[in-house]
Amino acid sequence: MSRRLKLIITYDGAPFAGWQSQTHSNTIQDQLERAFERISGRHVRVHGAGRTDAGVHALGQCAHVDLANDRLSPAHWTRALNALLPPAIRVLRCRYVPNQFHARFSAKGKIYRYRIWSAPVASPFEYKRAWHIPTLLDLELLKAAAREFVGTHDFTGFAANRGRPESNTVRTIHSVRVHRNGPCVRIDFDGDGFLYKMVRLMVGSLADCASGKGDVEQIAQQLVAGRSASRRFTAPAEGLILVRVRY
Amino acid sequence: MSRRLKLIITYDGAPFAGWQSQTHSNTIQDQLERAFERISGRHVRVHGAGRTDAGVHALGQCAHVDLANDRLSPAHWTRALNALLPPAIRVLRCRYVPNQFHARFSAKGKIYRYRIWSAPVASPFEYKRAWHIPTLLDLELLKAAAREFVGTHDFTGFAANRGRPESNTVRTIHSVRVHRNGPCVRIDFDGDGFLYKMVRLMVGSLADCASGKGDVEQIAQQLVAGRSASRRFTAPAEGLILVRVRY
Repeated sequence: MSRRLKLIITYDGAPFAGWQSQTHSNTIQDQLERAFERISGRHVRVHGAGRTDAGVHALGQCAHVDLANDRLSPAHWTRALNALLPPAIRVLRCRYVPNQFHARFSAKGKIYRYRIWSAPVASPFEYKRAWHIPTLLDLELLKAAAREFVGTHDFTGFAANRGRPESNTVRTIHSVRVHRNGPCVRIDFDGDGFLYKMVRLMVGSLADCASGKGDVEQIAQQLVAGRSASRRFTAPAEGLILVRVRY
Repeated sequence: MSRRLKLIITYDGAPFAGWQSQTHSNTIQDQLERAFERISGRHVRVHGAGRTDAGVHALGQCAHVDLANDRLSPAHWTRALNALLPPAIRVLRCRYVPNQFHARFSAKGKIYRYRIWSAPVASPFEYKRAWHIPTLLDLELLKAAAREFVGTHDFTGFAANRGRPESNTVRTIHSVRVHRNGPCVRIDFDGDGFLYKMVRLMVGSLADCASGKGDVEQIAQQLVAGRSASRRFTAPAEGLILVRVRY
């Protein structure tokens, strides 16, 4: 009888080739599976709530694993994994959950944050951690543009292809919150799900609006036009953070 | 006739062997001098307000250089230097100043910040940027202990030797401000000057108090006892930031 362990994981995405396991690549999933294997002596498959791309960070990624007859306590797992993982990946906490729980399929929604460093000179402390925009951003325009995304829409116009097309491209964005602290602009997206590169494509349009290169009307048009939209700009991965997975 | 340029510099100290130029070492001063030499074609000596140790960061280090007959504008220097410097060092701004200005000797005081990440698990985003203390800190005890340092004292008990002893070990601390934001504890020291490793030795004692290993009375005793103090603990370099130099 195996036991299912749920993990909450934080990582600095900069040194990794993304979440998902790949041959000859240094991914977060690979690092976790290696740590589990060293502790338990057998291969353990780590199931993440979602794949983050290379360079994307997490404050609260969620994953589960099935452990065969393991008697270690969750606190013990947390300590043992952190002792083996590189400092750029930390397990914040874990607990045993019913076997019906699935990190990906049980997820009810996610919160993503995008961080922009809006100042003439970049910050050494934000290198690979925020998108540096040297021009002045109009926060009121950004907030107005962000409101266009709230609600239930077909987000094809704000999605990239990942091999096969998604069968269902309708998603609900519950809220988009914009917050400024000095040069740091933070945009929090709370939604029931996100298509491939959706947050980065939305942020690309928001930054266009906030720097006077685009307007709110173009966002509305892009939502209607889908993939045939004329201007599509993807904000860089380094500013994106998976904040939390809701269950 | 040479012109003196004043620079405000920010750096992530993690990849460097400190501020001061050293043979076969990668220091911040070396990086700046190399960038100036590539732009101006001649060796330029960079005078910093103070040396920061290996791993110590800066939000507003100050330096000056003497440029022979140079006609570049300060904005041009900022852009040209940032184009050549590694991303871990950024020149925030510079301006021409009278030749009497000296980055080190004109300084009237400095503000240093020390950051502690107080949580059971370290943060990947604070690796080499804050001191991780997994035990709970008592902020009220920390604040009470911090008040002991305010005022004019002989700080021999909170100084390390750097070759020859300092001739004058009396310094004035104008204020010590303690601020908590979630797991991040920030301690700002505003003083007319600081002896070698003085902030890190003060923080070592403050952390002892806040975690119940020491008490406020020991700080008062250490101020009186000088270098013969029984317990001296230096907090790690990674949590220290030179915030600003006052002139």
